[in-house]
Amino acid sequence: PSKQTSSFGPSVWLEFSPLAIKYDSVNLGQGFPNFEPPKFVKDAMIKTIEVGGFNQYTRSPGHLRLVKALSSVYSPYFDRELNPMTEIMVGVGASESLFAAISSIVNKGDEVILIEPFFDIYIGPILMAGGIPKFVTLKEDSESINGAPRSSKNWKINKEELAAAFSDKTKLIIINNPHNPVGKVYSKEELQEIADVVVKHGPNTTVISDEVYEWMTFDGVKHHRFATLPGMWDRTITIGSAGKTFSITGWKVGWCIGPANIIGAIANTHQYIPFSVPTPTQEAVAIALEQPNIKEYFVELATMYQKKRDTLLNTLTQAGLDPVIPEGTYFIMGDTSSIKLQGDQGKDTSITGMGLHLRDWNIARYLTTEYGVTTIPPSAFYCDDHQKIPENFVRFTFCKDDVTLQRAHSNLLKLK
Amino acid sequence: PSKQTSSFGPSVWLEFSPLAIKYDSVNLGQGFPNFEPPKFVKDAMIKTIEVGGFNQYTRSPGHLRLVKALSSVYSPYFDRELNPMTEIMVGVGASESLFAAISSIVNKGDEVILIEPFFDIYIGPILMAGGIPKFVTLKEDSESINGAPRSSKNWKINKEELAAAFSDKTKLIIINNPHNPVGKVYSKEELQEIADVVVKHGPNTTVISDEVYEWMTFDGVKHHRFATLPGMWDRTITIGSAGKTFSITGWKVGWCIGPANIIGAIANTHQYIPFSVPTPTQEAVAIALEQPNIKEYFVELATMYQKKRDTLLNTLTQAGLDPVIPEGTYFIMGDTSSIKLQGDQGKDTSITGMGLHLRDWNIARYLTTEYGVTTIPPSAFYCDDHQKIPENFVRFTFCKDDVTLQRAHSNLLKLK
Ligand SMILES: CSCCC(=O)C(=O)O
Ligand SMILES: CSCCC(=O)C(=O)O
Repeated sequence: PSKQTSSFGPSVWLEFSPLAIKYDSVNLGQGFPNFEPPKFVKDAMIKTIEVGGFNQYTRSPGHLRLVKALSSVYSPYFDRELNPMTEIMVGVGASESLFAAISSIVNKGDEVILIEPFFDIYIGPILMAGGIPKFVTLKEDSESINGAPRSSKNWKINKEELAAAFSDKTKLIIINNPHNPVGKVYSKEELQEIADVVVKHGPNTTVISDEVYEWMTFDGVKHHRFATLPGMWDRTITIGSAGKTFSITGWKVGWCIGPANIIGAIANTHQYIPFSVPTPTQEAVAIALEQPNIKEYFVELATMYQKKRDTLLNTLTQAGLDPVIPEGTYFIMGDTSSIKLQGDQGKDTSITGMGLHLRDWNIARYLTTEYGVTTIPPSAFYCDDHQKIPENFVRFTFCKDDVTLQRAHSNLLKLK
Repeated sequence: PSKQTSSFGPSVWLEFSPLAIKYDSVNLGQGFPNFEPPKFVKDAMIKTIEVGGFNQYTRSPGHLRLVKALSSVYSPYFDRELNPMTEIMVGVGASESLFAAISSIVNKGDEVILIEPFFDIYIGPILMAGGIPKFVTLKEDSESINGAPRSSKNWKINKEELAAAFSDKTKLIIINNPHNPVGKVYSKEELQEIADVVVKHGPNTTVISDEVYEWMTFDGVKHHRFATLPGMWDRTITIGSAGKTFSITGWKVGWCIGPANIIGAIANTHQYIPFSVPTPTQEAVAIALEQPNIKEYFVELATMYQKKRDTLLNTLTQAGLDPVIPEGTYFIMGDTSSIKLQGDQGKDTSITGMGLHLRDWNIARYLTTEYGVTTIPPSAFYCDDHQKIPENFVRFTFCKDDVTLQRAHSNLLKLK
């Protein structure tokens, strides 16, 4: 393989989804709903195919009806009238949107700041562009554990560490809010602290704010958009996704929203990657977004997920897996300190040979094979500097139907 | 934008599709059918959504049912049992398949040989990987024009030029067969000549054979697969597409077929680009490929397109646009030497300002605005070395319904 891709091996997703199938385990690993999307979403797709006329290439930077629908839905949240033709680009999911954005921004030798743990898919396009990732770590503030329940609120970036990570070569910082896997929703003050460091570093640093879990925040916690902070619009690309919002992760419809000059450069690059995003899924997502009650849908989505979160939190607490209560996303970090591994447990059941030296990978395999519940080891979301990895966690998802969460409950309670 | 993408501007597709709409012109430009896909293809998609269960991420290198169906359909044509898990990867159309393949093979400084005219989308991923394109030009042999009708057969690569283009740095050669825009179907002897040069250059050169028009060959001309030449399997990636075959260019389902080591590297890279290809379209294409009469379908497709080709050939001949008879694809190069442009004609109607100094761009605009037929200027498929560009051609597509071809006929006959 080429040098820039030679370090790429199979990813964490290729170990645990096949392992879950092999051991017929309850899969709370990869984040995809195991229930059907809402009827209005499926109906939109069936109608799109039945009506006809949406089976050929559409506009490369985004199907017209979809960019217009996105502009209508998002303009109020960005406090500005978004131009559907120049300030929005549709990609093949958040993934290709991120890929096109990173490739269009990062030069060989540029530094890119990632907040650890970081969604593992960010690293590929950075390395392919010849960029150098620099890591700042979200750390759990153990002070605040005493008494109060453990919460994603207590995972924080140290201001000095963040400032120290910036250099003359910093071209890009990627933030993820709400944050996968921790479930943190950054407060306005925390975001402003990041913005201050970015501004202090001059005009050359761009920000990618990956907000794919934007509608999933709980307990009344408010999600703030980085792009709406003073002065940030001009240098921020916000990433969104229909997959999370409409429970259609397999349709692969995502988008970038930002200033015309950056979106224009991303769209030029995107022409050479997929050329265009599938037309029928874009038409159907546009129809879904045009539902008159779409804002209530977003609220109902959060309500549904908050119930599921509470169910899984209760399970993890009862099973002694001391969970970090997430303010957003559909993930929970559970603490496995109470589990002791003996000898080769967890290693012996690897199907890919990955992460054999990491406690969380072995715990994740052990939970699959011995307790029938599959999770994701968060070390997959850290760079290879092991000292920083809190190996006591595994990540559970609750984007599953109630029967599945109930089966997970029964299986995990055997840990007691 | 990043250096490696800074040369990217809007592409030819963004000038002529909007221009066709603006002037309500008959669009024989971009290659997409304007008729509906076959009923069994649409039904497969509707069923996929109705049944449910295909709305979430599927296997990153390709949906299981689809890679199995591809193995069944293609194994006989490759004279080997294709391993669906390791020798086939599904991409977001031929475009992303090509992008992932080129990125996985080409290093900074590597040379990549392209046969001019070349499908314009090849250039992006080469430049993004830091590769250096080298061009060998398909030239029309004017000797053979005398008497015999003008044919894509007479467009040939000069053996010495090809050999001279190879160097120690040649990492990749991309061929396109059947060839867009010329319509050439390489003979076995011509392919063997290419293979001989590749072999002579040692083991480090990989071949990408873009065969997306594989089922569209005419007059009994046989399409030979480069990968089936002696010794070529191990170093050839073959690109295919459901878009062309099932008239669903907007579904964006394509694939790479090749040896496990190269496909494995491509799949590792692909994880970071779209992560996975949309699931419902893959399921539906799998169902389509599983039709028991699929081979007859491929034959019917060629028969349908041969009729359309003959209709358009007749139009172009009558209009004095001396066509090059294509042996394959759904494109025809028409010779516009008989058209004289006056003053600013063609330039004055540009909507993007592209190609103002090129005769074929101005002719293409002039035909849109004055005669109501939109085409593509083939210079978009050449590097910027103008001496080589035969500016007398424009490319017409015949993948349109008969009413459209009839309207094009009436409009073009006004040229007489
Ligand atoms: C590319 S895997 C996607 C699933 C996901 O978002 C997650 O589980 O973190
Ligand atoms: C990426 S544009 C695709 C259309 C096409 O294949 C062509 O017209 O040559």
